[in-house]
Amino acid sequence: MNIPKRDINEINEEKIVDQIRSLGIDTIVEAGEGHTGIVLGSAPILYTLYAHHMRIDPDDAKFFNRDRFILSCGHGSALLYSVLHMAGFDISIDDLKRYRKIDSNTPGYPVTGLTSGVDASTGMLGQGFATAVGMAIAERNLEERYNKNKVDIIDFNTYVLCSDGDLMEGVSYEAASLAGTLKLNKLIALYDCNNLIGDGDASVTFNEDITMRFTSMGWNVLNVNDGNNISDINDAINAAKECNDKPSIIIVKTLNGKFSKFNNINIINENNAEDIDVTEVKSDLDVRDIPFTLSKDAVDDFRLLISTRCSKLVDKWNKNLEKLDENDRVEIVKFSENKHNFDFKDLVFEASEDGMESPVVTSTKVLNSISKLSPFIIGGCADSFEANSSFIEDGGIFSSNNYLGKNISFGMREHAMGAILNGLSLCGFIPYCATYLAFSEYMFPAIRFASMMNLKNIYLFNHDSISIGGDGAAHQPNEQLALLRCMPNLEVFRPADCNEVLGTYRAIVESCDGPVAISLSNENLKILESTKVGEVSRGGYVVYDCDRKLSGILIASGEEVHTAIEVAKRLFSKGIDVRVVSMPNIDRFKKQDSQYIESVLPVEVRKIVIEKASSMSWNSIVFNEKYLITLDQFGVSGDSSDVLKKYGFDVDSLEEKVEDLFK
Amino acid sequence: MNIPKRDINEINEEKIVDQIRSLGIDTIVEAGEGHTGIVLGSAPILYTLYAHHMRIDPDDAKFFNRDRFILSCGHGSALLYSVLHMAGFDISIDDLKRYRKIDSNTPGYPVTGLTSGVDASTGMLGQGFATAVGMAIAERNLEERYNKNKVDIIDFNTYVLCSDGDLMEGVSYEAASLAGTLKLNKLIALYDCNNLIGDGDASVTFNEDITMRFTSMGWNVLNVNDGNNISDINDAINAAKECNDKPSIIIVKTLNGKFSKFNNINIINENNAEDIDVTEVKSDLDVRDIPFTLSKDAVDDFRLLISTRCSKLVDKWNKNLEKLDENDRVEIVKFSENKHNFDFKDLVFEASEDGMESPVVTSTKVLNSISKLSPFIIGGCADSFEANSSFIEDGGIFSSNNYLGKNISFGMREHAMGAILNGLSLCGFIPYCATYLAFSEYMFPAIRFASMMNLKNIYLFNHDSISIGGDGAAHQPNEQLALLRCMPNLEVFRPADCNEVLGTYRAIVESCDGPVAISLSNENLKILESTKVGEVSRGGYVVYDCDRKLSGILIASGEEVHTAIEVAKRLFSKGIDVRVVSMPNIDRFKKQDSQYIESVLPVEVRKIVIEKASSMSWNSIVFNEKYLITLDQFGVSGDSSDVLKKYGFDVDSLEEKVEDLFK
Repeated sequence: MNIPKRDINEINEEKIVDQIRSLGIDTIVEAGEGHTGIVLGSAPILYTLYAHHMRIDPDDAKFFNRDRFILSCGHGSALLYSVLHMAGFDISIDDLKRYRKIDSNTPGYPVTGLTSGVDASTGMLGQGFATAVGMAIAERNLEERYNKNKVDIIDFNTYVLCSDGDLMEGVSYEAASLAGTLKLNKLIALYDCNNLIGDGDASVTFNEDITMRFTSMGWNVLNVNDGNNISDINDAINAAKECNDKPSIIIVKTLNGKFSKFNNINIINENNAEDIDVTEVKSDLDVRDIPFTLSKDAVDDFRLLISTRCSKLVDKWNKNLEKLDENDRVEIVKFSENKHNFDFKDLVFEASEDGMESPVVTSTKVLNSISKLSPFIIGGCADSFEANSSFIEDGGIFSSNNYLGKNISFGMREHAMGAILNGLSLCGFIPYCATYLAFSEYMFPAIRFASMMNLKNIYLFNHDSISIGGDGAAHQPNEQLALLRCMPNLEVFRPADCNEVLGTYRAIVESCDGPVAISLSNENLKILESTKVGEVSRGGYVVYDCDRKLSGILIASGEEVHTAIEVAKRLFSKGIDVRVVSMPNIDRFKKQDSQYIESVLPVEVRKIVIEKASSMSWNSIVFNEKYLITLDQFGVSGDSSDVLKKYGFDVDSLEEKVEDLFK
Repeated sequence: MNIPKRDINEINEEKIVDQIRSLGIDTIVEAGEGHTGIVLGSAPILYTLYAHHMRIDPDDAKFFNRDRFILSCGHGSALLYSVLHMAGFDISIDDLKRYRKIDSNTPGYPVTGLTSGVDASTGMLGQGFATAVGMAIAERNLEERYNKNKVDIIDFNTYVLCSDGDLMEGVSYEAASLAGTLKLNKLIALYDCNNLIGDGDASVTFNEDITMRFTSMGWNVLNVNDGNNISDINDAINAAKECNDKPSIIIVKTLNGKFSKFNNINIINENNAEDIDVTEVKSDLDVRDIPFTLSKDAVDDFRLLISTRCSKLVDKWNKNLEKLDENDRVEIVKFSENKHNFDFKDLVFEASEDGMESPVVTSTKVLNSISKLSPFIIGGCADSFEANSSFIEDGGIFSSNNYLGKNISFGMREHAMGAILNGLSLCGFIPYCATYLAFSEYMFPAIRFASMMNLKNIYLFNHDSISIGGDGAAHQPNEQLALLRCMPNLEVFRPADCNEVLGTYRAIVESCDGPVAISLSNENLKILESTKVGEVSRGGYVVYDCDRKLSGILIASGEEVHTAIEVAKRLFSKGIDVRVVSMPNIDRFKKQDSQYIESVLPVEVRKIVIEKASSMSWNSIVFNEKYLITLDQFGVSGDSSDVLKKYGFDVDSLEEKVEDLFK
């Protein structure tokens, strides 16, 4: 980028801010939709951040050690795009004119990967805030690992702009509480505090002392009473950067600003660009009232401020990179390029000697082995590592005393855990997390965002059926498998035993691009001779067969594969020949070629599905609901065997039912 | 209940507490599973609450004006059941011996309706806390409505016991923030603060100043430093009851108590009854070491304390009831019996004159009309009433200045909103809430609890398809319809127009027992002549037909019914005769008799489904995925028409595709 040199002290900062406001308003007016309030109110915040703090290179937007910025209040996208355009990122005026239009790079809510300079997709309040916490965790860990011999290879700040709505959402509370505990001082939240919500005065529903709340959670709280005062905002960000043992939140009061009248109008009438009198707004701004006409000075000055701070940022970093040990350098480059796989063949694994192992135990072993092979694995669980069998043995606990730790104690905060994974993933990690399958619902919105961004997260969902028994309906999953299987881009595996758990991880390493959920049984299950590591990637395959003419096929996943084989063996002794197909991944099986599908599930043979979960998962495999032995109701507390019997999933009941259906 | 009289001052309270502890431990040991830590640690809290505060009648456990108690940390069920047994509720020693066993009334986690004295089902942390807020809102509203002429017909307190885990969950934060804003002073939370989580010391992940946090949210915070000091606990509860403008939380430190050693052991090794040495524990307790053998004195004394406070509670209340106006009396009785329906025929409704109306607008009109007919309707939305079109016009905003208000400003707190609905429902209301369909995922765990408890909640999910356009993927629903349809006990309607919205409400009034989700379009849609209010309850019916031989059937719901009819009309002009079936409720249609199903969807005619959402919903209606014109990917930002075109849901694309498939 060529920027004319001139004296920085001569720069009229107010003019640049007004130019940003004007451009944002033009963008919204052209689209006919958008949130003008945030553009007018938060422009000085974003200006100050980008002009004086964000360490970025607009020509190399993905530069790995860049400061991150997340617009948690994603409805302010027009403001962000305007700032990014002005800063020199690859967003043109034509792009702004196509705001919210099909196939543009300026969608209604920020989409990472699509738009230069957008570090995370947002659009469901609170998520962005929690994702920023994930990025700050990533930074701390990478910094601790790779900054050696006085070379600061990783030292980025993560900034997040949030609104009242973001702070009302539970997910932001959860993430903030953890960030405070972990003393993530490179996390700086900018709170656009206008005390307005969709219905007007926020105090009818949101009446907290935010300073006190964040202080209670171990945050450094800074206040800016005039959201139009660039100097005050600047001082606050400087103070936040200087704080070395706490995350910071800067409460910027934006209501009493220059444009409070317009703030009011437009936040109350959200999504209604028609409500503002553009001429009237612009007459208050130091801009020309010709849409999308920018002051060249304002643009040049803004870029000058950025380039003065950030020139040769990438060069310097690359030079620093050369100073690293080769191993570290290679790893960092892989992080930055998100190329972080390893060879599955290198995995060291020893199965239990007695031939019995619960899938959850196998998974933990594999995770530990992968963790040794790959520096990109990091994760943890909600509450108990023991209950969730997900501890990296030599990894240590991630804490303010040990940012090298690989085990994150997320606490009972499933939703934030999910969103934090997204932040870790966006910084190059392959993050995982573990909780009960039933509790996956708490983190569903975060899984949705991972799926939208196609992040390579691994969700380990244990206690995956009613066979957990005594805990009853609240902890017994039912509909969750179908929910997960319904999520676009998310791959769902439900391995039957140790071999299939290995196969699942192999598939993850070799053929998964996006997020993966693994449904894991905690039952001590036989390691089957017929299950195959290499077959899992096909989604379904034959695990039990007979030579005589087939009377029927049982299709099952997870624990039920064992039951199905038991039933098939019993029926064999009665002269009924039944094949058993293990189907750990329904979607993958459906994507196989028709010849393979026909070989596994010949059209003319009757098929029965056995899965102790919602039938909805299986309607596309077996149409007739008569042949779906599934569970479309909530479970009940009881000994495992009694619960299985109650719902007809014990071997005796299944044998009778299957025999009857195959007659 | 016959309880021998004796001097209350002679009662040995410590002995009763030890008896509760002992009984809880016996219960867990007998089951071989359960959380002993909470039994030992929180017994004094529950003892004090039930002995000295809970206004209850164990012989009439559902007495409407009873104080409510929710065990948010549901893993403490053995403690609750022990207290309830000791207090004289209908839980026998045999019941306790069948703890966590099949078909017992003592499941691993509390289940309301199943167990006498259990006011809410719990088992996913945080939910119970938020449900308690719903009960406290219910109380405030009922109190304001019916306490007239110095007759206090409604004045119950809601107590909730919560653990560290509950307070870490975002849903409890959301609910607490709202409770503080609303100044719900009859809500009293008891926080079992042992600073222990599954992995040991909670401070590795949870390190808040709870006093400061709750103070920041407008709560009255009280501290009890010795969780074994009954007198201190009692004083704190009294102080909480005296506070008349804030909800209270009592932080009870239970770590340093008499049994800290066991607390430690057992909370760390959760679910592991074997780890405790029962003889050793009991030797420290003032009890006999014979399992399930109670001190008669302890039981009698406990019951005496309760009966002394609560005797004739129900009688007095019934007498007060007689003092009410007939109308109020009838309503209160209906509330208490949860019999709160009205005649759908009485509904006053006027459709838009121009024959166009968005389903969301119709729904709001109906809601307003029902609100006039029925005192049981209360609800609100997450953030904007305007964006969510769900305002009860003459209802007023529910606030600390107006507890009569019918419109609750839940704020951007979908999860708490869902859980609060459950609390309102458990107090006899028919509560509703509104938000974008995409955001339904934030409240899914609360919907799950409503479904488990089969509560008559109404969820109004608007902006129900990608046709919302510019907001893009984050706000455009996709998988949500399938998720909702997958939830046991939840009925899901997706009405096509004004008539079907009316039909949906009629079905809710006349034939729904449990929770209902309505998926509502915000598009201004034609009020069709062929849609029928009365047909909605059958789930699906013919809305467009032709006299000639059928070439195929289009099945659709919501907005797509209009598109399908348009396509059918175009094809008719080409000599292709197509029927259109509107299917607002798939499950209901599937439950019709086979004759009806055959009459609507004759087996031999080809069928195509059109719905701009996940295919998974429809596999049980049309097996061959070739004939499912659905959407299994995320949406995109763009003008509505462009977005529809991109995914092939514009009339031209559909006409071409359908014609091709029906050839």
